[in-house]
Amino acid sequence: MPNPTAAMLVIGDEILSGRTRDANMHHLAQELTKVGIDLCEVRIVSDDHDAIVSALNALRAGHDTVITSGGIGPTHDDITADAVAAAFGVQIDVRDDARDLLQAHYDSRGMEFNEARKRMARIPDGASLIENPISIAPGFSIGNVHVMAGVPTVFQTMVASVIPTLVGGAPILSQTLRVDRGEGDIAGPLGQVAADFPDLSIGSYPFQQNGAYGSNIVVRGSDGARVDHAMARLSELFAA
Amino acid sequence: MPNPTAAMLVIGDEILSGRTRDANMHHLAQELTKVGIDLCEVRIVSDDHDAIVSALNALRAGHDTVITSGGIGPTHDDITADAVAAAFGVQIDVRDDARDLLQAHYDSRGMEFNEARKRMARIPDGASLIENPISIAPGFSIGNVHVMAGVPTVFQTMVASVIPTLVGGAPILSQTLRVDRGEGDIAGPLGQVAADFPDLSIGSYPFQQNGAYGSNIVVRGSDGARVDHAMARLSELFAA
Repeated sequence: MPNPTAAMLVIGDEILSGRTRDANMHHLAQELTKVGIDLCEVRIVSDDHDAIVSALNALRAGHDTVITSGGIGPTHDDITADAVAAAFGVQIDVRDDARDLLQAHYDSRGMEFNEARKRMARIPDGASLIENPISIAPGFSIGNVHVMAGVPTVFQTMVASVIPTLVGGAPILSQTLRVDRGEGDIAGPLGQVAADFPDLSIGSYPFQQNGAYGSNIVVRGSDGARVDHAMARLSELFAA
Repeated sequence: MPNPTAAMLVIGDEILSGRTRDANMHHLAQELTKVGIDLCEVRIVSDDHDAIVSALNALRAGHDTVITSGGIGPTHDDITADAVAAAFGVQIDVRDDARDLLQAHYDSRGMEFNEARKRMARIPDGASLIENPISIAPGFSIGNVHVMAGVPTVFQTMVASVIPTLVGGAPILSQTLRVDRGEGDIAGPLGQVAADFPDLSIGSYPFQQNGAYGSNIVVRGSDGARVDHAMARLSELFAA
């Protein structure tokens, strides 16, 4: 049975303008791989209502799970929650449970729970909250979509709390063979091995070191014995 | 007049599995911003023919320029050129000009120009070559799509040679104001400034330092006087 699939939607002008380098995708990719969920697609869109709605609707129709990152803070450019509500065709307003969490947080620090901060309690109807132990403002889950903060530390805690709720697959095992020959030298026999192991994913990633070309051959699959078998064939073929 | 738009398509299982962290998107975002082209969307898909074709057709219909990264090497998992040909509905085969480049390169190094390496001379009909001074195997341009290597050093030289051929827009100027207050404190007046300068993009990016919250306010636009004006308003509002 194929593994469940996931997609990620990153929302943020700061990434598309080159100001910030995204860190969340790499983290999510690694965490999903551990539990046997295939991250099949990532889209990065700007802080634009229509772009978010349309990407989200495409991704949630095509994958078992969608995780979004960014745009749920208190400022005017944080429009993700409203866009998610629009994508699902549901109402959105400040919700009591989210407001109470935030009110208690700001009260305890002697900070004003102002209108801007109340925006962070806007939750689409029918969503459940994702806890944020770091800065309290919650994410939320609705349907197969999990809406998380863009700040990497907060994103990571939200991923940690959502992943155990997802249906995982067979964990993907991965082994790497480093070959000190260029891809062009090994491509022929490598392609033959890939054809002989259609149940595995066999990829080749070139590198350059001290002016010489090399290749990392990565074998991935859920059946450990098959991965071992393919690795043995490759080692035999490409042993120095 | 709005600036020209661009999209990027990153092709590679290694990024979606979390094995490799993409570096090309961040580089491209910065280079496009310099010449006034708005990078509006990025998609990352796996080494899957149908996924590449469908993402490419969506992106090339929606944007002035599309740049792809990855999947043009000699191994069995390098399927980008064939997928691009399929997306455009054109034939693809080993082409003389690309083959001659590669033949001369391998001859000069005493290396065999084998079948795998010949795959790198497969160019869709009607495409023009993008030079690769580093490892010779060319990228190519077809329609509004520019197909480049995934290896970062090669990607960067290809970007450098293609960008001067694109129609740029007004360069985007950017200024940042660092405010040692949390987003929730500044969001109200910040939103008012954003509303007063609808021609500018004003974003807020939270950070944490030594346990305290702060915000970087980034003002972007093509009219330097307007950017200065907005920055002056913000400095007045949020001066320590």
